[in-house]
Amino acid sequence: MDYQHVQVPFEITLWIMLASLAKIAFHLYNKLPSVVPESCLLIFVGLIMGGIIYGLNDKSPPVMDSDIFFLYLLPPIVLDAGYFMPSRPFFENIGTILLYAVVGTIWNVFGIGFSLYGICQVKSFHLQDISLLHNLLFGSLIAAVDPVAVLSVFEEIHVNEKLHILVFGESLLNDAVSVVLYKLFRSFCEMSTIKTVDVFAGIGKFFVVGIGGVLVGLLFGMIAAFTTRFTKNIRVIEPLFVFLYSYLSYLTAEMFHLSGIVAIIACAMGMKRYVEANISLKSHTTIKYFLKMWSSVSDTLIFIFLGVSTIGDNHEWSWSYICFTIIFCLIWRALGVLVLTFFVNRLHVNTVTSKDQFIIAYGGLRGAICFSLVFLLPEFPRKKLFIAATTVVILFTVFVQGMTIRPLVDLLDVKRKRESAPTVGEQIHIRFLDHLLAGIEDISGHWGQYYWKDKLEYFNSKYLQKFLLREYDQPKSSIVLLYEKLERKHAIELVEAGQLIHEPSHTSLLVFVDSHRSTVVVKESDSMNPDVLENIQKILSRNLYRIRRTVPAYNRHNLPGESGTAEQAKEILILRHRSLR
Amino acid sequence: MDYQHVQVPFEITLWIMLASLAKIAFHLYNKLPSVVPESCLLIFVGLIMGGIIYGLNDKSPPVMDSDIFFLYLLPPIVLDAGYFMPSRPFFENIGTILLYAVVGTIWNVFGIGFSLYGICQVKSFHLQDISLLHNLLFGSLIAAVDPVAVLSVFEEIHVNEKLHILVFGESLLNDAVSVVLYKLFRSFCEMSTIKTVDVFAGIGKFFVVGIGGVLVGLLFGMIAAFTTRFTKNIRVIEPLFVFLYSYLSYLTAEMFHLSGIVAIIACAMGMKRYVEANISLKSHTTIKYFLKMWSSVSDTLIFIFLGVSTIGDNHEWSWSYICFTIIFCLIWRALGVLVLTFFVNRLHVNTVTSKDQFIIAYGGLRGAICFSLVFLLPEFPRKKLFIAATTVVILFTVFVQGMTIRPLVDLLDVKRKRESAPTVGEQIHIRFLDHLLAGIEDISGHWGQYYWKDKLEYFNSKYLQKFLLREYDQPKSSIVLLYEKLERKHAIELVEAGQLIHEPSHTSLLVFVDSHRSTVVVKESDSMNPDVLENIQKILSRNLYRIRRTVPAYNRHNLPGESGTAEQAKEILILRHRSLR
Repeated sequence: MDYQHVQVPFEITLWIMLASLAKIAFHLYNKLPSVVPESCLLIFVGLIMGGIIYGLNDKSPPVMDSDIFFLYLLPPIVLDAGYFMPSRPFFENIGTILLYAVVGTIWNVFGIGFSLYGICQVKSFHLQDISLLHNLLFGSLIAAVDPVAVLSVFEEIHVNEKLHILVFGESLLNDAVSVVLYKLFRSFCEMSTIKTVDVFAGIGKFFVVGIGGVLVGLLFGMIAAFTTRFTKNIRVIEPLFVFLYSYLSYLTAEMFHLSGIVAIIACAMGMKRYVEANISLKSHTTIKYFLKMWSSVSDTLIFIFLGVSTIGDNHEWSWSYICFTIIFCLIWRALGVLVLTFFVNRLHVNTVTSKDQFIIAYGGLRGAICFSLVFLLPEFPRKKLFIAATTVVILFTVFVQGMTIRPLVDLLDVKRKRESAPTVGEQIHIRFLDHLLAGIEDISGHWGQYYWKDKLEYFNSKYLQKFLLREYDQPKSSIVLLYEKLERKHAIELVEAGQLIHEPSHTSLLVFVDSHRSTVVVKESDSMNPDVLENIQKILSRNLYRIRRTVPAYNRHNLPGESGTAEQAKEILILRHRSLR
Repeated sequence: MDYQHVQVPFEITLWIMLASLAKIAFHLYNKLPSVVPESCLLIFVGLIMGGIIYGLNDKSPPVMDSDIFFLYLLPPIVLDAGYFMPSRPFFENIGTILLYAVVGTIWNVFGIGFSLYGICQVKSFHLQDISLLHNLLFGSLIAAVDPVAVLSVFEEIHVNEKLHILVFGESLLNDAVSVVLYKLFRSFCEMSTIKTVDVFAGIGKFFVVGIGGVLVGLLFGMIAAFTTRFTKNIRVIEPLFVFLYSYLSYLTAEMFHLSGIVAIIACAMGMKRYVEANISLKSHTTIKYFLKMWSSVSDTLIFIFLGVSTIGDNHEWSWSYICFTIIFCLIWRALGVLVLTFFVNRLHVNTVTSKDQFIIAYGGLRGAICFSLVFLLPEFPRKKLFIAATTVVILFTVFVQGMTIRPLVDLLDVKRKRESAPTVGEQIHIRFLDHLLAGIEDISGHWGQYYWKDKLEYFNSKYLQKFLLREYDQPKSSIVLLYEKLERKHAIELVEAGQLIHEPSHTSLLVFVDSHRSTVVVKESDSMNPDVLENIQKILSRNLYRIRRTVPAYNRHNLPGESGTAEQAKEILILRHRSLR
């Protein structure tokens, strides 16, 4: 036996297998996932696994490697998030999101840092050796809301689109801010004296890191779109380019100390439109399902590792410090949301309601990013206390807030996501209003979002499309484009609905029977009685097509597009067939 | 800038990117891939890359790591091969394949080994220091036909199914034999004296390695099938299990020094039937396209690395040894095929024709497996000569044989693969004959393949299905199963054909227009003139559906199911719709 030889791939495969099996086990009982978020259950499995490893070896189980987390586990989740980001609500609320992500995060970092420093001054707590800088450093890693945790909870509770994008967008874009602050404070900790120049350099870095990330991402996104122009003869490797280029954008950004998360999101959002027009729909399906699978596995592994890493001797306990950390995290976030939303609501017609504000504040979950950052801290006496505090905050937010947010959403009767897709009429109406508003803005000289959107669209159709799309015809009028888009969506939905069941779909059944009948009619029109055929057809359709299927409850493990409308269209087709007969 | 941090994933991504871009570049000119096999072009790119690296660094470029090859690059290709192996021709010819793979490989190893030893005795060649054992060791690594090279060439020339499965099956199954012989001779080289016991132990190992591989594979295959019974609530991770379990079977087999290739093939063939029945068709599509993409990338990387590794100072040249190696490889393979086919033809009604024999002998391409094995040899004075000889044999077989085999197939007018799928009539007929022959075999007391197939099918439906399938109803009669299978295949084909074009398919168009019309009729039946609707419908269908598409020429980069029948069925549907109107 030669275990050494295969150890690395074997253990990786086993971990992934464990994660997948744990996922299956939870979903065996339908009740369980509807009460407890999956993230809690996975952390729980991790805790048990960690306990077993600890019990058997009598030493701390291995801690999640920060490199593995940042280089291999995080990118698929962010790519999935960026690629399937609903771009309209995102850009409509980009100002608010940026305000929460930038100002809100800075507010939280300094709020938590300074107030914890205040707590450290209380003599009876024995925490006087923690300097202000260390407290700020801790604040910078604990303040940022975690996209993985937010996604895993919010995908299951279906709040309205705006609320979802506000929390989720903030969790993604605050990466740039928290990375800058974290690195800034860490370098300050290692410096002997801090000059004013350094502080200003730090502020300048915000823009470099964030905008740099966007530029790197867009660059790779454009290259990806350009590459897919030439894949017509070799369709099988098309999906690869989406993965490769976005991963490269992440790695390149990380290499230059820019924000990798921002880069991958910019890359995914930038390329999506052109790539989808260039690649075949088969490749598109592969990208879609593979991304879902991959991010789902990554996310499972992260939570299991989080659980495993919690067990061990890495912790130093201090009731006062840890309890006050939780309290300050909650208070400063609530205050920040209140204050910022006050300004947002003065500028917007479509305000953020107080219920929404509560959910935004309450949904500030912390997760694996804090955890990885705290382990990356340089060695100093109180590092173990920081690790303990981070762990407790993560567990508190994921377990307590994660488990109570769904009942709270029900209780407060927060506006939910509309389940049905917009109709053609609505889409045309929205499109029309966009043009109208762009015109009004142009006339009134107010350069708002509609004005810029219109300009961007013009630039896109005038230059970008010619360069990035393979089959670039004359620019079609937007109504034809919309029709084509809806058509395509509809075709995909039909296909997906048909593929859900193992019995053949009625559409194909009809085609099959039709083609049979046609050939039969042509070939042996006198040897086969039409009544007999009719009969066969009836028996087959009765046996092979279940006319009503139960629509599965929406959750993150089902893919979208499995619901209502396609079914309806199919049934209409069936009814029409019958009536024609 | 912090390159160190991201180096490993960055360089891997760049290599994959290079490989993909090289693939795109070849396929930009449609003429090129039809004349030169892709493998040759990729090796050529590798040679150029190697030359550049050699020129810039003035030292040999890195050699393909055997571990990377065997642990990461080979498994996806073999999994793809095993999962999409046509099981009927494979099992129909299993006897012949095993004869070629086992006896043929042993014949080649000893033939090449002994005759090269004879050459080494000629004084003027200055090769007397190469012992018989070393020659046999060299024979054991050079004798085996390589599945990757065979696949890449034979997938492009479309010989008949039987000929294809004979060459391809042999190349897959000879792995067990060549691994055993290679390890045997290598351990003999390190022993001082060889006892008779060792030789017999070596012979016994054949069976252990081969049958052990099959058992490991089947075990994991059954576990995989069993696991997919429980994935109903969590469809997204279904594809993962196919990849994970087959990879685990490969690693486990390698760990116990069994044949990994045989294990992964047994696993894939064993699980396929049950997994496909359990998982959703979406997951099935993801598995299909992802496997194709993955194996295609692996195969590209292997050939590029093969080219890169060729350049450098690893070679010792000896005209006589290298030329005689090529000659003996050709002669012994030709003789082996002739002799073995003679026996095969005496036992079978459906004989292997002399044209087929020529192609089998000529299609014995060597590839990356030999290359990796020769680098794994223990250090000894003439290792560099062996490396040079292996490289030349690989380049000779891939370039000369690979490029001339297509013209030869044309010239000899070898029977080609039938392009159309079997009709329902044919399938039912084949099924009927199977039962008939099983009955005849049972009555006559001859336990042939049909008898065993029947028994296996009985065992499967009596025990295995109950255990491995989720929705196990009463066993359906085989005609219903066949119908369902065809139905499903048909549905998938329809979908795939529809997805090829960016314009919406006519089917969905009709559905769309239908559903529109229905809703329109229901809602505002008096406000809309049916003539106007008819007109809109006509304009849309004229603009949005191209009735005839050019069917792309078959090659390995297109996925199957993009051709004829689905189109036909669709057109029939359209015609029928018209006639009904």
